[in-house]
Amino acid sequence: MQKRPYNFAPGPATMPEAVLTQAARDMLDWNGSGMGVMEMSHRGKEFTSILEKAERDLRDLLAVPGEFHILFMQGGGLGENAIVPMNLCGPVGGAPQAADVRTDFVITGGWSQKSAKEARKYAQVNVAASNEADKHHHLPDPATWQLSKQPRYVHICSNETVFGVEFHTLPDLKALGCDAPLVVDCSSHIASRPVEWDKVGVAFAGAQKNLGPAGVTLAFVRDDLLDQAMAICPSAFNYKNVASNQSMYNTPPTFGIYMAGLVFQWLKDQGGVAAMETLAIAKSKLLYGAIDASALFENKVDANCRSRMNVPFFLKGDDGQPLLDAEHPRNAAFLAGAKARGLLNLRGHKSAGGMRASIYNALPLAGVETLVAYLQEFERTLA
Amino acid sequence: MQKRPYNFAPGPATMPEAVLTQAARDMLDWNGSGMGVMEMSHRGKEFTSILEKAERDLRDLLAVPGEFHILFMQGGGLGENAIVPMNLCGPVGGAPQAADVRTDFVITGGWSQKSAKEARKYAQVNVAASNEADKHHHLPDPATWQLSKQPRYVHICSNETVFGVEFHTLPDLKALGCDAPLVVDCSSHIASRPVEWDKVGVAFAGAQKNLGPAGVTLAFVRDDLLDQAMAICPSAFNYKNVASNQSMYNTPPTFGIYMAGLVFQWLKDQGGVAAMETLAIAKSKLLYGAIDASALFENKVDANCRSRMNVPFFLKGDDGQPLLDAEHPRNAAFLAGAKARGLLNLRGHKSAGGMRASIYNALPLAGVETLVAYLQEFERTLA
Repeated sequence: MQKRPYNFAPGPATMPEAVLTQAARDMLDWNGSGMGVMEMSHRGKEFTSILEKAERDLRDLLAVPGEFHILFMQGGGLGENAIVPMNLCGPVGGAPQAADVRTDFVITGGWSQKSAKEARKYAQVNVAASNEADKHHHLPDPATWQLSKQPRYVHICSNETVFGVEFHTLPDLKALGCDAPLVVDCSSHIASRPVEWDKVGVAFAGAQKNLGPAGVTLAFVRDDLLDQAMAICPSAFNYKNVASNQSMYNTPPTFGIYMAGLVFQWLKDQGGVAAMETLAIAKSKLLYGAIDASALFENKVDANCRSRMNVPFFLKGDDGQPLLDAEHPRNAAFLAGAKARGLLNLRGHKSAGGMRASIYNALPLAGVETLVAYLQEFERTLA
Repeated sequence: MQKRPYNFAPGPATMPEAVLTQAARDMLDWNGSGMGVMEMSHRGKEFTSILEKAERDLRDLLAVPGEFHILFMQGGGLGENAIVPMNLCGPVGGAPQAADVRTDFVITGGWSQKSAKEARKYAQVNVAASNEADKHHHLPDPATWQLSKQPRYVHICSNETVFGVEFHTLPDLKALGCDAPLVVDCSSHIASRPVEWDKVGVAFAGAQKNLGPAGVTLAFVRDDLLDQAMAICPSAFNYKNVASNQSMYNTPPTFGIYMAGLVFQWLKDQGGVAAMETLAIAKSKLLYGAIDASALFENKVDANCRSRMNVPFFLKGDDGQPLLDAEHPRNAAFLAGAKARGLLNLRGHKSAGGMRASIYNALPLAGVETLVAYLQEFERTLA
């Protein structure tokens, strides 16, 4: 078989070759059942076994404690931006719906911005901290966060995919004197390191970056937070409903769950999250090191919060300024040369410009080595 | 290749073999791109071409008029039960949100019951007609419907999957003196016959019965209904948002859309919806005919509204009464014999009991012929 290109897409993203090969093999007949996975009733014993194994493997892989429900949902991260407040801002313990429910958001990039904007439909939103003023280059120190008195929850995006900003450790709200649950959007770095569950109330992630195909959303919901949905929360997106029906209140995205299950198995075979963390540190260190050592490339994010999954970088112009416009001849030449070498999807997000290499679990070290060699080669050709 | 079993599952359901074969072939490398479809950025030119072709083929296949937007969404039929009222029950034309928005529902089985129940979260619900009293065996004549004065919309489920009740023609609300748009849940018979678009305001369908895998929902929304969402409608499920972003406001279920696109192409290759309608009439006539001619099997749905897609039937006991319990020895023997002959998933829905054969587009005539031969054989062995 021909060697596959290295795909640096930010999500949907590269999948393990072994997983795709298995999926192709099972397509017309899963495990002698006479049906492909897509053709199975979601309530039949075949798909039930697929779903149960996927959930078990994910719980094992991420060491999810028993008090957290694992929910397979639909709608992605943008869906959860509404689903979280609809589930957490309703009446608590038999009290009537409060009119002044307050939520806190820490803005560290485009995703947390979108989350805060969406939450305003359902609750009052307090921006407790923001790094907008310095173009998302640093992480606001939790000691400086202006938290509300009794917010219903505090939301962070623990890895901002567009600007490449990552919480290397989760904030400890209790240590900050706040009893509210922490809601963590961890879409773009889930399963790249262990989760500090003792600091978390709800975590969610679209699967399409590190865990599988688009169309599957994972939500991890602590048991005590299951029963405070707003009356207008749709049944299909109500955490309690989904939990009490084993993610089968509505027909789940069966094939996507099967694919995610294959990825979970592959991750376990690779040595699990500990091995992925070691690999992520090695890959990101190599790439940031090459960028920092170069006169042509730059990344201005603080070293203490550089993402290990999404590495945005810029080529500089002859004046030393970063070239934002992907159509600039130097950027275009860089992207064309990359593609010719089998390095795909390095163009940055339109809201950031420049370049971005997403180096998720399924992107091997050899891919980053090849990219680094190309960065050096490209810089030499300009010298 | 070994002949595949006939899969009568109600959804997720059997897929065309040619479609599955193509998907297996493309799994690691779509069209020489070096990426499988699951690995593609949803905004890249490769996936954009897949989405655009799928939408074009679907518009062609169902003759969708230009004033209808085709939206690829997530959340299935149960999701749409909330998404429809959240999109249609908000302020209209700059007026404030009305407190007494009224919607009308026609109950013809379990799906329309669920839809009406969910809508009560967002609006007043008037049950304009119901066939509950006779166990969903007939279709209430539109001339008898008790429609509200000015409902925001009138909802029907045009094919009830569980009880096998189908509107063979859509009601003409205008002829009934009602100006409201008709909302049609057509999940389980979409693409089995032409759509009477002049009678429709919104139509929706989970893809997992006649059009593709679970996790993709099609919504067809008439242009004038795009702009009356409630303030609490989540952005990711707001029809206007989805329409103005070509179904890419949030990351769409890319692989599911690709699979649906392969099904659309396959349907066109088979002769389109006209050919599917001819086939559905032939298959359902054969099966209902065998049931009616038998002393052992029965289906009590009125002939004028028997579903061409979902055929529930019961074996009778020695006392002539239908055997609801699937665990009854006679039912168990029937199901075991069916499985041994490669006839899968004939067990009925738990809320109806007995048996059900779902005979969607991808289930060939030969499958129904084999089933009919087995019905006759089984009856003979009891004689």
